[in-house]
Amino acid sequence: MKKQTRRKFVATVVGAGALTAAQAETPVKKNKKMLAHHVFFWLKNPNSKEDRDKLIAGLKTLEKIETVRSLRIGVPASTEKRDVVDNTYSVSELMLFDDVEGQNAYQVHPIHKKFVEDCSHLWERVVVYDAIDV
Amino acid sequence: MKKQTRRKFVATVVGAGALTAAQAETPVKKNKKMLAHHVFFWLKNPNSKEDRDKLIAGLKTLEKIETVRSLRIGVPASTEKRDVVDNTYSVSELMLFDDVEGQNAYQVHPIHKKFVEDCSHLWERVVVYDAIDV
Repeated sequence: MKKQTRRKFVATVVGAGALTAAQAETPVKKNKKMLAHHVFFWLKNPNSKEDRDKLIAGLKTLEKIETVRSLRIGVPASTEKRDVVDNTYSVSELMLFDDVEGQNAYQVHPIHKKFVEDCSHLWERVVVYDAIDV
Repeated sequence: MKKQTRRKFVATVVGAGALTAAQAETPVKKNKKMLAHHVFFWLKNPNSKEDRDKLIAGLKTLEKIETVRSLRIGVPASTEKRDVVDNTYSVSELMLFDDVEGQNAYQVHPIHKKFVEDCSHLWERVVVYDAIDV
């Protein structure tokens, strides 16, 4: 392989390697203990589809953060209405991290900070649950 | 392959196939839209390790329910204490289902009913969030 070609080859591979763990096709391993970070957002304007979509677009950027192993963005499901079910939130963000350190690194990551800066005016309330697998 | 041998072979394969989706090594597919069912339990005796372990043991039985695609059982993680973080619960149960129907089937499944019968005296409060991926 000539030097020039090899450089191009390396660049391509490195480019492909730039996929984050969450984007890659290798899912979280079965039985691996993880930290689930689940955030529920209540919008200031819960009836605004535009605000909801802005928030969802913002949340999607978080997938690029290296320590985020899995990201699911959801809205209330049409399951049976029961007293114990809270379906009053607008958007849910569910992430998996390897450990507490991964979640801590995420909190201070520039992409996360930019998300908060761009989107925090949209919500009036946030509830976060961090659970570590037993 | 002789008939006898083949029958044994088939029996072995069928036996292996009896693993539930949650137990199997094939994880939830990347980008597949799922329903996340997240339940938080507050124990009547939050300082009783025995009660917590009883609840965790009960939750583990739920993995056998056919429509449960993934089950994570957690406890509050030692992430940074912030106003938005609720770490007052004792145990968290996070499940993935293919869809609302899968979650509905789970609710009325005998294994789930037995879990509620055996364990509901342990908790004083439950909050459930059902989120469908966007």
